[in-house]
Amino acid sequence: MRGYTQDKDAYLKRLRRIEGQVRGLQRMVEEDVYCIDVLTQVSAVTRALQAVALGLLEEHLGHCVTEAVRAGGDEGRESVREAAEAISRLVKS
Amino acid sequence: MRGYTQDKDAYLKRLRRIEGQVRGLQRMVEEDVYCIDVLTQVSAVTRALQAVALGLLEEHLGHCVTEAVRAGGDEGRESVREAAEAISRLVKS
Amino acid sequence: MRGYTQDKDAYLKRLRRIEGQVRGLQRMVEEDVYCIDVLTQVSAVTRALQAVALGLLEEHLGHCVTEAVRAGGDEGRESVREAAEAISRLVKS
Amino acid sequence: MRGYTQDKDAYLKRLRRIEGQVRGLQRMVEEDVYCIDVLTQVSAVTRALQAVALGLLEEHLGHCVTEAVRAGGDEGRESVREAAEAISRLVKS
Repeated sequence: MRGYTQDKDAYLKRLRRIEGQVRGLQRMVEEDVYCIDVLTQVSAVTRALQAVALGLLEEHLGHCVTEAVRAGGDEGRESVREAAEAISRLVKS
Repeated sequence: MRGYTQDKDAYLKRLRRIEGQVRGLQRMVEEDVYCIDVLTQVSAVTRALQAVALGLLEEHLGHCVTEAVRAGGDEGRESVREAAEAISRLVKS
Repeated sequence: MRGYTQDKDAYLKRLRRIEGQVRGLQRMVEEDVYCIDVLTQVSAVTRALQAVALGLLEEHLGHCVTEAVRAGGDEGRESVREAAEAISRLVKS
Repeated sequence: MRGYTQDKDAYLKRLRRIEGQVRGLQRMVEEDVYCIDVLTQVSAVTRALQAVALGLLEEHLGHCVTEAVRAGGDEGRESVREAAEAISRLVKS
């Protein structure tokens, strides 16, 4: 079981709202809405996506990484390294 | 006419692809895909959104801000201030 | 004259404070301060640096880019393209 | 013992180099270097700081968080929550 599966419905709800926001962006472009207002909305969608990512990451640390660390040795180290790489991609995106 | 309207179709195409990526994220969560793989995909969507924002911003500077600056005086200054605030929101998101 | 030269003293003051914060980080590492507290301070320094960048960028748009746009033609376009690339580096850093 | 203390000298070296880069920024402003070149250098310093943060974070997960998780119960959970908050500050800075 993945770390986030207990909150699966909450994540799906948030991702569906983000999908709606992206469709809203398409409408804004279609209707020639002022660029700055489109940009403000893009920033809002980006923040919503990053909040999902931070939530997933916290649960990943609290479940998958925690279990791997308890299993000990290489498995724990590999899990920490993998999480660190995901954090790095997140910080750089 | 907005700065981006000449590339409207290209922006709509990119936003539809991003919408598809967000739906892909929902499927990943529904199918309990490994957290790290979900996070990698969230980073990809975030980068795609930021590329759209940077494109819109460049055209905004090249069209709306350029015209406002040529009109001169307060209009130009206000347009620069507004663009700087959008850039700030983008950097912080 | 560069866009920021009228606020030169203010920028120098902010950069000297940032230099002091980076020396503070060295002291924290030397004294084995708790990692999370070091990280909190690194985030503060990063934010201070980005605030300097956003200030410089706004003045660059209000002075150098504005003048290039008023000069017209290729000079204006090149200036906008150059600013857009700087914004892109800032967003990705 | 903190997670980073074994690499203390390496971190101090990197932070001293960053301090030198910040002094370099002051010289650039003093000598009225072109804004875009100052901004490029600010982006470089920001990336160097974030690389330090990501290094510290990985070691924090591999040492402090790993030990707290092995100790079990509340200590592990609190350590994960604290790390997640630090990651969130990093992503937003």
